[in-house]
Formats: sequence, structure tokens, C-alpha cells
Amino acid sequence: MKTPSVNGARLIESLRSMARIGATQKGGVCRLAATTEDRDARHLFVDWAKKANCEINVDQVGNLFCRRRGQNDELAPIILGSHLDSQPTGGKYDGAFGVLAALEVIRALNDNNIETLRPIEAVSWTNEEGSRFPPAMMGSAVFAGALKLSDALNTKDLDGCTLQESLSQIGYAGAVPCGERPVYAYFEAHIEQGPILEAESKIIGVVEGIQGIRWFDCTIVGEEAHAGPTPMHARRDALIGAAHLVQRINAIAVQNKPYGRATVGQFRLFPNSRNVIPGKVSLTVDMRHPDPDALASMGGSLRTQFETTCKETELSGNLEEIWYSPPTNFELTCVHIVERAAQLRQYSNMRIVSGAGHDAKYMADVCPTAMIFIPCKGGLSHNEMEDAEDVHLVAGTQVLLDAALIKAMEEE
Amino acid sequence: MKTPSVNGARLIESLRSMARIGATQKGGVCRLAATTEDRDARHLFVDWAKKANCEINVDQVGNLFCRRRGQNDELAPIILGSHLDSQPTGGKYDGAFGVLAALEVIRALNDNNIETLRPIEAVSWTNEEGSRFPPAMMGSAVFAGALKLSDALNTKDLDGCTLQESLSQIGYAGAVPCGERPVYAYFEAHIEQGPILEAESKIIGVVEGIQGIRWFDCTIVGEEAHAGPTPMHARRDALIGAAHLVQRINAIAVQNKPYGRATVGQFRLFPNSRNVIPGKVSLTVDMRHPDPDALASMGGSLRTQFETTCKETELSGNLEEIWYSPPTNFELTCVHIVERAAQLRQYSNMRIVSGAGHDAKYMADVCPTAMIFIPCKGGLSHNEMEDAEDVHLVAGTQVLLDAALIKAMEEE
Repeated sequence: MKTPSVNGARLIESLRSMARIGATQKGGVCRLAATTEDRDARHLFVDWAKKANCEINVDQVGNLFCRRRGQNDELAPIILGSHLDSQPTGGKYDGAFGVLAALEVIRALNDNNIETLRPIEAVSWTNEEGSRFPPAMMGSAVFAGALKLSDALNTKDLDGCTLQESLSQIGYAGAVPCGERPVYAYFEAHIEQGPILEAESKIIGVVEGIQGIRWFDCTIVGEEAHAGPTPMHARRDALIGAAHLVQRINAIAVQNKPYGRATVGQFRLFPNSRNVIPGKVSLTVDMRHPDPDALASMGGSLRTQFETTCKETELSGNLEEIWYSPPTNFELTCVHIVERAAQLRQYSNMRIVSGAGHDAKYMADVCPTAMIFIPCKGGLSHNEMEDAEDVHLVAGTQVLLDAALIKAMEEE
Repeated sequence: MKTPSVNGARLIESLRSMARIGATQKGGVCRLAATTEDRDARHLFVDWAKKANCEINVDQVGNLFCRRRGQNDELAPIILGSHLDSQPTGGKYDGAFGVLAALEVIRALNDNNIETLRPIEAVSWTNEEGSRFPPAMMGSAVFAGALKLSDALNTKDLDGCTLQESLSQIGYAGAVPCGERPVYAYFEAHIEQGPILEAESKIIGVVEGIQGIRWFDCTIVGEEAHAGPTPMHARRDALIGAAHLVQRINAIAVQNKPYGRATVGQFRLFPNSRNVIPGKVSLTVDMRHPDPDALASMGGSLRTQFETTCKETELSGNLEEIWYSPPTNFELTCVHIVERAAQLRQYSNMRIVSGAGHDAKYMADVCPTAMIFIPCKGGLSHNEMEDAEDVHLVAGTQVLLDAALIKAMEEE
């Protein structure tokens, strides 16, 4: 059997159409999970999948599976996909690329009248970003049994609306049980969301695994006072402590180069009034490293620096770890299949570790899993300016097809 | 004529009643300008003033004057007062003390059947705090001709509601022209809002003037990117620059001790998402000094440090001065009258410069003006824990009465 080629023009056209849903002025998208924009994106995907003769299944957490039958339809499927939701000021390919690449795999197999032994499903996972309903990768976490269905559905957004209510409102609260079924393999194509492939001039990133992540919530407490009459020596300014801590958190990551990352992404002052010395600051810390020992050590350094900062600045506070996602190593055979596919197509490629979390992280607990990265412009993502080249989007989709086809033909 | 005593018990009882309006759980008040809480506070003040036979006048910016007739009612009045609005998490005496001390002066004169040559007015100025509608001291600024009436009335809160609309809603959009009339003298009693009187164990602060204030709006711009895949060396994290700048701003004030003050009171991240490197930070700077040259030099240092920070951290941004209030020196005779009154009552006292802005600042441009400070617990203000001792509240009111009576009996 000759391996078919994907239809690059159709893929790019589909990506353009999808990018119009929730489009922002700067060229990005705002499609928060389970909003009307998310609904419209799902509708479009379902419409296309139905035209490609897929059966549509929505599970209890809203994960959306578009299934192409296999010769032996009882065998465990190959699942391909990613997510259609975005950050508030997100990019057009983050997630959508992996979903529409999966759709293109199915379309290309249809075009070439190729029957696979196993069924192939294109999936859009619910709420991968976690921007509206924390934590991130929620749909795949429930699928993999890492998060309870009821906990996910009861998660509230800032307005107090639950995921369950939001899914019902958009018509994607499905009845199919979430997970609880065998999967033969999972592949996810995604933009790198970092600058490495571009800097190294590679087209395909063969992803070996995903960095571990630790999320912390931190508060620093001083004393509110009037900005005018309170002499500098008599102040207990929570922002001064927080500013010290921000720099020290940054230094922890720099000391753990090249893989260590640390980010303070959310930061709030109380009472946040122009002429009041800040009495409290709350901030978040996101730490990542592919090595579990290094990541544990970074967390220890954070605790030490937090305590040192409080002591030096005569402030108090609290530091709490709210989430830990251990580093993931993808299955060696699947990683090798991806690498071999890139080599055979003569796409320049390199091994890479993902700095971002992905649904593939949870799927790696369920079945053999790997990911395919393509470069993104300037390494930017979670940014409306996020962009990728058409030729790379097509190449990544081709590798996805080639890898999927190998697994879809395996008997056992 | 024997100088009458104020009724301390009545003053304290009135302060307690007023503090119930907008009371917060921690013992403070939330009475933002022109809200229903502000309305309720004004209603109570008007009710008391009518019972004390005052005539009520509300001017076009909502300043509320309660007038006690003079023997020669054509003569320019003595005005006494402060404000009834508060910070979002404000204290119960900041402003309210000066207004109710003025009311107590009128009540005590009534009790003792004392007719003054000149009329005496107790005033509550509109929107002294500026928390909801910037800038601060709005009502007295319009009264003194330092701010155009239309500009004040068109100021919008964060929800887009104008001061004009808000005053109409609470029934305090008056018809009396704002200012444009002679005032013979103005006295304002206030808590110190700083720690100095308490530290020096003095009951009365004889206020010589008010520190100058410069307000700046600052933005620091980097580049949003995903917190996971972006290596530390490839980041342009706006928060790192802002954290540097916060520390440098603090250092500028410390270098200008003992009078220099600098505060970053508002601070916002964009997009403020846990796993996105901050692309922008906006922050405010409040700088104060009683010496205009020192204050100018502090502003110059801010500009230098802002530019240095941007250059060192490879970020861009903007720094704009949005308000300058020059230092104020109160009229020497009025200051001396306050000092002499404190001495005659044998209240321990000291000269002091106000670190906070007050309505007296604008009134000093209109007529001879002075202020009376009393200690506040721990120097705290703009804080729900703000507190003062009953005996100090009574002493400050007594000095206000004694000083007002001297000016109210002057023919010319």
C-alpha cells in the first residue's frame, strides 16, 4: 500500500475557516471553553466530520470524538487530536491545528479509499487551556481517570457558572461515558509554542515527553496605610516583598537552565488604590522541568526564597502548591514511528521535550502516545500574534497521517 | 466672653452613628463618593444640621454646606469641615471626624447661646478620596477654581458612570454655584494619617502645610508567551521589569528621607493568566515631598530609573505625569491661632507637615487656612483598622471651636 499524501490546500483552508470563529483584531482567537465561540467551533468540526462520514460521539465531559470505522471495528481505535478552546488572547493554531490535522488524516484516507484495520477517531478535548475552568487539560484528565467527572463538571468560572451548565447551554453535555474504553495509540500534532525548532531550523519536533509542572498560589501580607503620611521606614508594603520574590523566582529558573522555567503569571494588589500602600499581594507561580528531581528542588528553592523574602521585608504570607503534574515520557515505539515518518518524508527533525502541558500527557497514561511539533513564529504562543508557516502545518499533518497509518494497521 | 467647651459625649456618639453607614466587618467603612452609602451619610449630617437650625446649601458639584447665621450675616463666613466619602477599605474617622467636629462647633455655640459676628458653615466636600472618581479633593478643587465644574461632573467611574449622574441618583446634584464667593477663613480637623504624633506623644498637630504630590501612570511592555516552552533567556517578561522598577522607586523615596515618600499603589498584569508570561504591566506612582525642588528631583530620578530599567530588561513602556499638586504653606496667622488654642487648653502639641492631601489644600488658595491634626492609632489610615482615641477626638474639636471662634468674631 502506498502511503497517501494529505491535501495541504484543504487543511490550510479549514484552519483559516476555523480561525474566523472568535477571531480577535490582532489575528488571534478568543474561544474560551464552553462559550458560544467554542460551540461554533465544535459545530464546524462536527459538520466537516459528518461530511467525511464520521460517527459523532460526545462524552459526559464534552469531549468530542469523530470516528472513522475500521475493517475490524471492534478493535481499539487510534485517536488523533487536540483541542478547539483557546486562551483569552490566544493563537489560531494552538489546539486547532491538532484537531484539523486529525480531520485531514481522515479526509485523506477517504480520498484514497484506504480502509484501516482499526478505527481512527479525531478528537477535540474539552477545556484544554483551563483559562475559564481550572485546571488545564480537563477533558483528557477525566478520560484518563486522573480527574473525577463530577469534580470537572462542578468547576466554576469567575462568574460562578459550572462547566456542566456551560456545556448544557452550548449543547455539548454528552451522554457517552468518559474514558473506560481501550485505546490502541494516541498521536497529537501541535505547534511547538516555543522558539527551539525555529532557532534550529527544523521542520518537525519529535516529542520525547512533557516537562513536569508545579503550580503554587502565594500571598504576601503587609499593612495597608496612607501613601502620604507614612514614612518609608514605618511601612510594611506587601508589593516590595512581592517584587523581591518575583526576581528570586526568576533566578531559580535561570539557575536551572536550560530546561528550568518559572513564571509569575497572575498578580493582584489589595486594595489596589493609587494612594494606599499595598496591604496584600496575591500571585501565582508556574514552575517546569523535565526532570522530576530538578523540579522538586526548584519547589524547595521557592519555599526557601519565599520565607527569606518574608523575613527580610518583615512581611507574612502563605505559599501553597495547588497542582503537580509529573514529567511524562512518551512510549518509545510511538516516538520512533514519528521520527521515522519525518525521516522518510525528508523533513528536517530533532528530538524535543515539550515545555507546555498537552492532552497527550494524560493519554500517555492510557495508551502508547507520542506528539509531533512544528515550529511557530518567534516561538510565540498564548498570544494573538502566534503564527506558523503553511508548509510546516502541512508537513506536521503528513507525519501524523504516516504515523497513524502504521498503528492503525497493526493487529496487536 | 467665656470660650465654651464642646460636648465630648455628643461628638463621640455622632461619630459612632456615622461610622455605622457603610460599616465593614473589620471596623472601617466603605463609603465611596456619590454612592448610596455616601447619600445615607449626607442625609444623617443634614438631619443633624437642621436640628441645629442650620440652613442647607448643596452646590453644583455636590458640596454640602450647613450654615449657622452670623450677627452680620452679610460678612464672609468661616468654613469648617472635611469629607464624608471614604476609601474602598477606609477608616471611620478619615474625613468624618472633620465634618462632625464642625457640626459639634455649631452645636456647642447653640448650647451656649453664643452669637458670632460672622456666619459659620460646616461643610462636607464631595469626593475627597478620589477612589471612585479621580482625582482626589475634587469638590474643594472646583470650589477654589482649580478644576472646571464640567470636568469634575463628567469624570467617570470604572463602570462608565459620571459623577453628575451619580450625584443626581443620590439627590445631591445641587443648584448653588460652586465657589465664587468670599470666605473669611477655613479650618479643617483631621486624623494625622501618619505615625508621628503618636511616636512623639503629642495630642495636637499644628499643621504648617501639605506635602506636594506627583502622580504618574506607567506601563511596561514586553511580550506575551507561553510559560512552559519559552526558555528563560528568550523571554521579555514585563513583570520582571516592573519588579525592578518597584524597588528602584522605593529607593528614590528612601534616598530623600525623612520627608520623601513614593508608593506604587495600583498594579495590573496583562493578560494576567497563570501560564502566560506577562506581556504588559500598568502601575501607578505616587511621590510626595514638602519641598518643591526635592519633589522635582524625585520625579527626575523616576524618569531616569524607568528608562534604565527598560534598557536593562529590554522592555519598552511609557511614563506619564498625570497630576501635580505643589506643596502648600498654610497662612501664618491661622497656624498661630491653632497653636495658641492648643497651648491655652494645655494640650501637648507640635508643628507638623501633612503627608496626605486635604481639602484645606485648595481652600488655602481661597482664604486664610489651617488644619488641626490628632494622633491615629499606629499611624494607620486608608485602612479599616484606622482608629483614634476619644479624648484626642474631643481635644481636636475643642481646638477647632476655639480657633473658629476667634476668626468668627473678627470684623475685618
